[in-house]
Parts: sequence; C-alpha cells; structure tokens
Amino acid sequence: MEKRFIYADNAATTPLSETALNAMLPWLKEGYGNPSSVYRIARESRIALENARKTVAECLGAKPTEIYFTSGGTEGDNWAIKGALARSRRKGVIISNVEHHAVLHSALAMEKFGFKVTELPVRENGIVSPDDLRAMIDEDTAIVSVMLANNEIGTIQPIAELAAIAHEHGALMHTDAVQAAGHIPIDVKELGVDILTISAHKFHGPKGVGVQYIRSGVRITNLIDGGGHERGRRSGTENVASACGLAAALKEAVDTLPERMPRLTAMRNRLIDGLLKIPYVQLTGDLDKRLPATVSVVINAVEGEGLILTLDELGVCASSGSACTSGSLDPSHVLLAIGLKHEVAHGSLRLTLPDDIDEDGVDYIIWAVATAAERLRAMSPVWDSSAGRPM
Amino acid sequence: MEKRFIYADNAATTPLSETALNAMLPWLKEGYGNPSSVYRIARESRIALENARKTVAECLGAKPTEIYFTSGGTEGDNWAIKGALARSRRKGVIISNVEHHAVLHSALAMEKFGFKVTELPVRENGIVSPDDLRAMIDEDTAIVSVMLANNEIGTIQPIAELAAIAHEHGALMHTDAVQAAGHIPIDVKELGVDILTISAHKFHGPKGVGVQYIRSGVRITNLIDGGGHERGRRSGTENVASACGLAAALKEAVDTLPERMPRLTAMRNRLIDGLLKIPYVQLTGDLDKRLPATVSVVINAVEGEGLILTLDELGVCASSGSACTSGSLDPSHVLLAIGLKHEVAHGSLRLTLPDDIDEDGVDYIIWAVATAAERLRAMSPVWDSSAGRPM
Repeated sequence: MEKRFIYADNAATTPLSETALNAMLPWLKEGYGNPSSVYRIARESRIALENARKTVAECLGAKPTEIYFTSGGTEGDNWAIKGALARSRRKGVIISNVEHHAVLHSALAMEKFGFKVTELPVRENGIVSPDDLRAMIDEDTAIVSVMLANNEIGTIQPIAELAAIAHEHGALMHTDAVQAAGHIPIDVKELGVDILTISAHKFHGPKGVGVQYIRSGVRITNLIDGGGHERGRRSGTENVASACGLAAALKEAVDTLPERMPRLTAMRNRLIDGLLKIPYVQLTGDLDKRLPATVSVVINAVEGEGLILTLDELGVCASSGSACTSGSLDPSHVLLAIGLKHEVAHGSLRLTLPDDIDEDGVDYIIWAVATAAERLRAMSPVWDSSAGRPM
Repeated sequence: MEKRFIYADNAATTPLSETALNAMLPWLKEGYGNPSSVYRIARESRIALENARKTVAECLGAKPTEIYFTSGGTEGDNWAIKGALARSRRKGVIISNVEHHAVLHSALAMEKFGFKVTELPVRENGIVSPDDLRAMIDEDTAIVSVMLANNEIGTIQPIAELAAIAHEHGALMHTDAVQAAGHIPIDVKELGVDILTISAHKFHGPKGVGVQYIRSGVRITNLIDGGGHERGRRSGTENVASACGLAAALKEAVDTLPERMPRLTAMRNRLIDGLLKIPYVQLTGDLDKRLPATVSVVINAVEGEGLILTLDELGVCASSGSACTSGSLDPSHVLLAIGLKHEVAHGSLRLTLPDDIDEDGVDYIIWAVATAAERLRAMSPVWDSSAGRPM
C-alpha cells in the first residue's frame, strides 16, 4: 500500500482549526489590552472575552455567568474535586474507577487531609451502574465525579441518572466532559450536573485553556485566588486569545455535529469491523454507548509501545492507553477496571479518527494495524506464527 | 499637541513580540502533537518544550529540571503559598503588605485551614526591612513570600537578605518576580530563593503561561494533580506553543537588558521629573530601587478612574493602581501600606513605559497628564482653580 499519513490520536490532542486560529490571532497581535483595564484597547479585549463566554454558554445550554475560563481540563478537574471537598463539611468523594488521572489523583491527594475516596466500579463494558452508586452514596458524600465519556475506551456514562442520585443525597455532581465536548451533544441542564469540565485542545481549540461550568448557586472553594478575575472565582489575567479560540472551536464543533456524528460513527464501525477480523483482537468498551470517533481494542501477543512506533513508521498516529500515561509501563487502570488481565492490557490500541476520515483512510488504518501486528507477533515469544495463534 | 498613541501600561500586560509570536506559530499550526505521545510529531513537540525549558533555565540561572511551566503568575503564586503550607508541619506564612493579590489572597485563603498569615510592613519608600522580618519570623514559619518588584510602585525588595533570614529559621523563601522578569536581571542563585514565579505576558510573551522555578530538593504539595506532566508536579497537557513563546520572549528580554535598562531608566527619570513639576504631584515608592520603566505618582484632587479615561482620550494608556483592581473602588492596599491617606491614594497614576519610548514620547505623556489633571481639577470640589491649589 502507498504510504499515507493519518493522525488518528485525536483523543490525545487535535490540530488547531483554521477557525480557532483566526479567532485567536487578533488578540495575539494588536488586541493585547488587559481586559481588566479601562482604556479602549482593554475594553475591546473585555468585549471579546465576554462574547467568547456567551458563545460557550450557548453551546452548553448554560448561562454566561455559569462559565469560567481555566487553563484546561486538568485544572478544571482539580478545582471541582478539591474545591468541593474544601468547601463541604462532608468527607466523602465518589469517583468511577475509570476516571482520568486529573480526577483520580485530585481525589487521592485529598486523602491526607482527611477525605475519603470511594471508587464506583464499571461493568465489563466500561459503564457504571446507577444501582451501584445508589448502594454506595451516603449523607457524608460531598461530591460524585464520573466522566461523561472515557478517554481510553470512549464509553459514555449515564450522567443524568447519576446526577439525580447524587442530588437525592445532597451531594454535588461533577462530570469531566473533556472527551465528550464537541464530539457528542452536551446540555448541562439535561445532564443535571453541578460542575462540568472541558478542554479546548480536544475539539480543535488551543492547548492551555478550558472551561468550567458551575451551575448558578453552587459554591466551591477557589483553586486559584488572586485579583478577582472571572467574578472572583478564578484569578489570573484572562487569556483572551485562547478563550476566543476555544469558543470558536466549540461553536464550530457543535454546529457540525449533526453531520459529523453519523458519518464518523459509520467510519468508526467500519474500522471496528476491520480490526476485529485480525485474529485475536478484542474490542474494549461498549459497542454502542461510545464516542463517534473512538475505537479501542486489545491485540493479543502485541506490546503497546512497539505497536505505536510501528504504526508511526506506517504513517498512523495512535496511542496505547491515554497520552498522559504513554511514558508509563504500568497497564492502564481503565483496562484493568473492565476486567482485562495485565498481559492483555499491554496490547491495547486506541484510534481516534480525524474529522475528514474516509473509507480509504479507514482501510489504510486497518491494513497498517494488521501489518504492525503481524510484524510484532513474528518476533513475539508468546505467539505461534506457524499456527497463527497465541502459544 | 498632535495626538499620539502611547501604550504606557506595560505592567498590566505587554504586546506580544514578533519574536514570541513566531516562536509560537509552528506549534499552533502543524506542530500540534501531544508531547506525551510517542510518535514523530509528538516527539517534535516534546523537543520544542524541553528546548523552551532549557532557554528559561539559562535566563534565570537555574537548571532545566528546576523549571515548571504553569498557566501564569497567579497560578504560580497560589502553588507556592498553598503548596508550601499544605506540605509543612509549620503553620505560619509571612508576606509583605504590598504583595500582589495572588499572594495575599492565597495566604488568606489558607487561614480557614488553620494557617496563620503575618504581614511584613514596608517603610514609606515601599521597601521592607530585613530587620522587621528577623523580628517576626519564628520556628513556626513555613514560608516567607515577598515580591521581587512591586506591581504598583515598582519598588525592588532586598530578596537575597530576606531569603537568608528565612533559611536561618528553616523556612522556604518565595518571590513573585512577575513584574521583575525581563525588566531587571534575575539569578535565582544570587537571590537565594526556593521558589520564584514569573508570567510571560509581562515581558512580551503570551497570556496564560508562566514559569515556576522550584529549587532542586524543595518539596511543596501540587496544586494541580493529574497525568503526571512536568515531572509529576504540574499536570495538564503541555501548552507547547505558549511555552515556546514565553521562552523566546524571555530570552529576547534578557538579551536586550544591558541596552534597555539604562535607556529606560533615563526615560523614566525624565518622566518623573516632568510629572513632579505639575503642582501637588508626589512620587510613590523609592526613587532608585525601582523598576527601569515604572513611574508612580499620586495627583492631588484628581480621581484615578477619571484620570485614566481622560488620558485614554489623549492617547495614553495608563492605570491607577494595578490592572486587576481597576474595577474596584477601594484604594490600593499598596498605597495605603506606604502611608498614603485614602483620598490621596484615589489619585494614583501608574505609567509603565514601552521599550521604544523616546524623549518626545515622554514629553507627550507629561503634557497629557498635566492636561488631564488640569481638566479634572477644574471640575473638582476639593480644588481651588483660581489659587491653583487644594482647598
């Protein structure tokens, strides 16, 4: 096959869109005023920032006063968990056992201050059960945090049901929607959450900027205090250019969703079908309750890092587990949570399709994965090449 | 006079330099890879990020492993204060009474968790006395935080002496160098600090990115936990473009300092001389231990916001107090700390000169301030226009 280049790691980060870059450039160039100042060029920055806030609010079904710009998803997750616990008299936090490390490590960091972390298990398809939450939550639970869509296996959680249970017990509900925003519809009212976290670079906005939705009336302790920006809740000179880039990217993503979702879902399913024809390949996560562009499998007798480097040679950018833990040799906690054994989890592959993928592109990825798997298995001590199966 | 446009609020924020923008653009465009991933385009991002870290380290006299990228000065100040207190068994924090709100409010936010904030007073020239610190510090002091240069009156503090005292008592020394970086030479070893905070947009880098220097061996609790970026101490997908912009801007600032400092100091002194010729105008802060481009005065019988708006009409961008508190009607805590009365502090003016200012520009600013003061005093109930003095 003729070599191609396909960036299929859009869950790690996405290319900045032309729309987002063009929304940023005026505020990186002549529009440099500090929005907190009062002269003309500063007032123009302020207007741009507030327009960005309004756009984001519209995209999420929120009010502009419920939107706070942050430095990204990790800050948002930290703020939600640490801020809710620091503010509450309750001592408990419930998180799913497939949360991003930004939620998991924020929760665990609070243990030394006397807070108690309980993990809500997922079923084999990677989805939590509301019944399990109901059995686990009590009047000492300050906050429940379950991600809207998983970053490794793409499964979508029943957030609205979980939020209802949290609220019955007087707990706050947070969702890390970093992987979901721009990829599936989000309406904060329908989800019923108190706090929602998103990050621009996952939907073709810039790195280093995110949004925290905090429902009107919800109080959590500030993570970042100072000059009183963002209505006293997130200080620091506002990053006008990046906020404008985020807003433009989110609007474009939301506007194109009705067309993109079914198209990418078809491409995703074609990719899943093709990969499952490779012997001893298994889908991870749920087949249906899954992000439109996310494919995740485990490939028997193949080691993740070798797979990613071989795919890179073949022109396909992909990941094994999440990007954040690419440097780590430990198997992903998400794959262990869905019941995979260590040695199987090591052969995980995540492919997150670009918006412009077509059938030829999907077929190229299938060919590249099959080729890489064959090469690596030929060298594997646990693969019987003559029989074409694991030893 | 023919109307000009002079941006003289460079302490609020600076225009992004061409050098910084050009350093950013490749990583906003084709170089979008997540530095934590392992394929080629991701490795290129990683290399760019680590080169930026190396450049920053060289500019500050630090090791690259002591440099952590953050979202800016406010995050850095929060991390230093909250992180040091959360990690220590000691309960005390000493800050000067002219700190930026990012330090002040971080410290005060920790009071509800049982920590004790003590304020180190400044003398009338805006500078703290090491003797005062020596009298105040004890074995329960976890951290001392004094800014290297003040954001309102530009005074430069004796950080090296303060750090020595802090260390004699086993306390950490932090300095908010947000206003100093790129404007005066900084060497972390000479300063003797454990933690130093800077922000790119104060030296012609982008908004939304900063650097935390943490001396090797110094341990503080993380503010932002997650995927383990920045060697496990500041998580979140690395903002490669902004880190590169910060590094390029800092290097340019440091490289041009030997030429800029004496030139700007001469311009600043010309401006001070001219302003002090306006009747009933008084310099705030120290005349010599002062940032090269920062002029701060109080103008009797003039109200700050009216002054800023009038100067804006005359083409001069300036501020009254710090940008962060421009929306507030309270007088600056810094001006009260140096002994000014409320009604005098309301007439404060801060001018921070652009790098390309010349004598004509300075003279234009002097004319604009004199004109604005005259107009506002003509309407003031506390000014006797016929006698040309306060009532």
